Amino acid sequence: MPRSHGNDIDILIQLLAKLPGLGPRSARRSTLQLLKKRDSVMVPLADALTAVAEKIQICEVCSNVDTHNPCHVCEDTRRDRSTVCVVEDVADLWALDRSETFKGLYHVLGGTLSALDGVGPEDLAVDSLMARVEENGVKEVILALNATVDGQTTSHYLAERLVAFEGLKVTALAHGVPVGGELDYLDDGTLAAALKARGDVK
Amino acid sequence: MPRSHGNDIDILIQLLAKLPGLGPRSARRSTLQLLKKRDSVMVPLADALTAVAEKIQICEVCSNVDTHNPCHVCEDTRRDRSTVCVVEDVADLWALDRSETFKGLYHVLGGTLSALDGVGPEDLAVDSLMARVEENGVKEVILALNATVDGQTTSHYLAERLVAFEGLKVTALAHGVPVGGELDYLDDGTLAAALKARGDVK
Repeated sequence: MPRSHGNDIDILIQLLAKLPGLGPRSARRSTLQLLKKRDSVMVPLADALTAVAEKIQICEVCSNVDTHNPCHVCEDTRRDRSTVCVVEDVADLWALDRSETFKGLYHVLGGTLSALDGVGPEDLAVDSLMARVEENGVKEVILALNATVDGQTTSHYLAERLVAFEGLKVTALAHGVPVGGELDYLDDGTLAAALKARGDVK
Repeated sequence: MPRSHGNDIDILIQLLAKLPGLGPRSARRSTLQLLKKRDSVMVPLADALTAVAEKIQICEVCSNVDTHNPCHVCEDTRRDRSTVCVVEDVADLWALDRSETFKGLYHVLGGTLSALDGVGPEDLAVDSLMARVEENGVKEVILALNATVDGQTTSHYLAERLVAFEGLKVTALAHGVPVGGELDYLDDGTLAAALKARGDVK
């Protein structure tokens, strides 16, 4: 194959193509843009990647990924330390935190129970969750797992283990119609859940 | 705003969001994947960016961007040095080279003439093209500019200047139906050009 650019540029294109949302074609476009914006984007991006790669750690309290340990969430003194929201993944933690509604702490499980994939409670951050609830005066655990079969199975499993703690409130995210959603496009399961959980009009 | 991650991670997301094809949402997803694949993707990507940023240069012969000067194309001794293909941009050079049909050299203009944007011949690599043709025994110049108004204006301008060289063949890319294209979806201009340039069936 003819080569219009050097090996280093090829490697860069291949690595960029591994990012979600970028295929080989957009990786080439990105590389061209990086080559043109060497000082304003390419060098800062290289520095940012190196800085983050050197500093990332798993938070020993909640398993969040951050450049600090404990992470920014666990360190934030303005947060309500008596409420812990259990999520599957760091992505879910970020998503919930962007909504700016929840001011408590999180606990990242690192996945869901799955008989098919051989994932048991010992593969997830379950024991550390139980230890947190036992030791740190947690009053409420919000189960915010995905509304998938695996997510809900894990949710049930955690709820069963958490009832052992006296006085602990265990809650889950509400099911219902997404804000801005049109009924016509919603699946039957969501509509049934929204009907079942209907509330008085205030 | 609550902060679920550190400043360095924020900076990384913002920089990734500047890449074409990545918005803020996919930049966050990319960052999460990079955090998870620290050793297999994040560190190599940081290294590749640093390596390329340190080495990129503009080829003094053809204005291609590469980690070598002269670039890999100009250095390649298997290429036909008597044919020069003129393109607007490095992206076009890469695209033509991927087709593996052309085995000559390139010349990157760095844009097109544009009265509106105040781009004149002195802002493009026109003089260096003329010098190359004059000095280096070039027998054919292929004008491979985009089929836009500015591209075609530039093409005409170059063709007019290149006729001054005796014995030099000046050609342009053929217009016609794209391979795999359906006639029904093509614009009138393309169809007219394809009809006008029709050839005998072999």
